[in-house]
Formats: sequence, C-alpha cells, structure tokens
Amino acid sequence: MSESIESRLQALGLDLPNAPAPAANYVPALVAGGFLFVSGQLPMENGAVAVKGTLGDGVDLADGVRAARLCLLNVLAQAKAALGGDLVKVARCVKLGGFVASTPAFTDHPKVVNGASDLLVEVMGETGRHTRFAVGVAALPLGAAVEVEAMFLLR
Amino acid sequence: MSESIESRLQALGLDLPNAPAPAANYVPALVAGGFLFVSGQLPMENGAVAVKGTLGDGVDLADGVRAARLCLLNVLAQAKAALGGDLVKVARCVKLGGFVASTPAFTDHPKVVNGASDLLVEVMGETGRHTRFAVGVAALPLGAAVEVEAMFLLR
Amino acid sequence: MSESIESRLQALGLDLPNAPAPAANYVPALVAGGFLFVSGQLPMENGAVAVKGTLGDGVDLADGVRAARLCLLNVLAQAKAALGGDLVKVARCVKLGGFVASTPAFTDHPKVVNGASDLLVEVMGETGRHTRFAVGVAALPLGAAVEVEAMFLLR
Repeated sequence: MSESIESRLQALGLDLPNAPAPAANYVPALVAGGFLFVSGQLPMENGAVAVKGTLGDGVDLADGVRAARLCLLNVLAQAKAALGGDLVKVARCVKLGGFVASTPAFTDHPKVVNGASDLLVEVMGETGRHTRFAVGVAALPLGAAVEVEAMFLLR
Repeated sequence: MSESIESRLQALGLDLPNAPAPAANYVPALVAGGFLFVSGQLPMENGAVAVKGTLGDGVDLADGVRAARLCLLNVLAQAKAALGGDLVKVARCVKLGGFVASTPAFTDHPKVVNGASDLLVEVMGETGRHTRFAVGVAALPLGAAVEVEAMFLLR
Repeated sequence: MSESIESRLQALGLDLPNAPAPAANYVPALVAGGFLFVSGQLPMENGAVAVKGTLGDGVDLADGVRAARLCLLNVLAQAKAALGGDLVKVARCVKLGGFVASTPAFTDHPKVVNGASDLLVEVMGETGRHTRFAVGVAALPLGAAVEVEAMFLLR
C-alpha cells in the first residue's frame, strides 16, 4: 500500500512537501486507539500559504480546488512523518473535515473539497474513500482559503 | 434496538428517506475501528434541499429546527444503508457535529441543532444521548441551512 | 497523572469550574471505544459566558486567548465529571477542535486557540500534546467568542 501511495503520487508527478511545522502549540499528527489523527492542514507550498482569500469573493473555484489538493498533500506528508516515513500502516482514510473560507452566498463547498477527496482516491484507490464534511467558514488561519483535517485507520 | 429505532420512527409517523448519494467524491458512511462514521448530511427531502438560507437572515428558528431534524433523518438513513439495512448493530450515538448557516448576530445555534438531538433521543432513547458541537458557519453546500455529521459506536 | 493534572492546576492557581450543564438536549461528555469525547465547551465562568463577541470586531487577541483558556478549563471539568471525579484514566489528549467567532478579515485563529492548547500542555505535559483544527466561524452559541471540543484517549 505504501509503495502504491507513493508510486501513484510519483505517477501523478507529485512530491509530498516537507511536513510543515504546526503554526502553534500542538502536534501535526498522532496515533491513538488504532487511528492516525492529522491536524487541520493549510494549502502550504514551499513553506507559504499558496492560496489565500475567500471563495465567492476573489478566489475562484479552480483556485479553491487547488487549495484543497494542496491541503491533502500536506495531510499525507504529516501522516508519513508521524508514521516514521512510511505510509504502509495506513489501512484506509476514515474521514476528512473540509473547511472552506467562503462568503454567505457561496454554495459550491463540495466542489472545492473534491480537490482533496479526488486526489486521495487517486493515490489510495478504494482505501482512500472516506466520509467527510464540507462547510463554509468565515475565515481561516493565515488567510488560507481551505483547511483540511483527517483521520485514518491503521492496520 | 433496531426494531426499537424503526418502530419509534413509525410511531412518530416518520419514514427514513432514501439514503441520498453524496454530492461529491466520498462515501456517505463507513465502519472503522468499531465506530460508524456518517458524512455531513443536508436537510434533504424528496431528493432536494428542503431548508435553504441563513439563520438570522430569513430562516426562522422553527425552520432551522426542521432542517436539523431532516439532517438527522438522513443521518439515520445513511447509517442504515451502510449497515446492510438494519440498525441493530448501533450501540449508541457518540457524537453529532452541527453546522448552522448563520449571521454573525445569531446566537441560538443550540436550539437549532436540538432539532437533530431531540429526534435522536426520541428514537434511540438513552443510547441516543450524544456529545456534540453546534456552531454558526458562513454558508453550507447547496445553500442548506444546516449540516449534521455523526459518529456511532457499534456493538 | 490525575494528581499531576490537578496539582499543576493548583500550582497555576486555577480551579476547575463546576461542569456546566449542556445548553440543550445532549451530554457534556461520554466514553466510547476507549476514548472520552467532550462536547463543545464555551468560555463559561461563574455560570455565564465570560467572553462574548467576534475576533476582529471588538474582541481583541488577549480576550480571545482568555476565552480559549476558559473553554479548556470547562473541557477538563466535563472530563473529570464524566470519569467519576478523577482524571487518572486520561492517557492523553488526542484532539481539540477550536471554533473562533471571527470576521472574514481575521487570521490569527491559531494564536487564539493556543489559549487552550498551551494550558493543556501546562497541566498535562507531554500527554497534553494533541492534534487540532482552528477555524473562524460566523457565530457561536450564546454569542461566545470561542468554542472548544475535545477527544481524549483513556488508559
């Protein structure tokens, strides 16, 4: 499975970013009770938030999708780091929580969070199919357009 | 318990809706580590979002309560579908997450989410008593007024 | 560990508040599958919400931090009450969910939620290090500035 995730990332031309340090006093990921929990990740790229702003007010759908996809790459990077550099212990993704900075009038949150969900299924296959919520929030840390948290089941 | 949930729904004159297909690339519910996770559900009725808009700006408390109640019926429908058509394996509800589309001035989110919590206790009794959060968000998918996610413990 | 948590609280001059009753039809905390789940807690102090309003619009960072800290004290009070008055069974904190009432322009949610995270590490040490999300929402119950939910692993 680990080879699979990483080889599929490679096939997609994607590298996992360095696992970003938390923006505050918490841990990016931890194992408890057979699950791996990953803290809410921002769309970090090369050490900076790559997509800032609000869906429905300056950030378009394509940028929102790109933001969610970047969040998911950071989720996978944190998962890998927390598991000692190897994703082989991941049995499946249980849940993604998708927070989208949006105006009250914006209603396409599912399409935005698909940026994360679609990539996860691309790299994990059936075991990447997860439950999720997608909601529109007032604002996110550092002005990010999207934040995604995750929960995985370990084997 | 299953007979109980379904007979109590019947006694209340309530039918579970068809389990709606996800609005995007994820699964509506899955079992992992002894828990059943249910994706965020909207107030779907007859295949459409029945309560749209924002609490504090056009949607009144009664409609908000009705929306939360519909979300919960969809949660139960998804749980039943994921468990092969039978809720007998549900030991208890662990948690509801309640997202309410609201203006900054609205403060009655608990009363809104009670639409879900009260119905759950009506149909599950003591085993329906759960932890929860209730928060006011900027907007929800498809313009829904409420979204409810859930986590159940299986026996 | 229990002595430790409570003795560290004492050393900090902090008393756990009375565990507040839920604002609605749910339970403040429950044990399931080896975890303790705690419902979203508001910054209650002496039976009232101590910090109301919106970050970025009248509530400054210091008050936001104080609100998050109060939320965490209420989380610990609920955890203690749910465990029969003793925190000795708590192995570690797995996750905090931090909701901050904020304007769209506010971006310092991590600093606000640090009020909870920092206090947790102060009183629990390494076992208090947790995953988390921090997001800015439109509004919270009773006009509270912050709401914090939690999940602990039991031994």
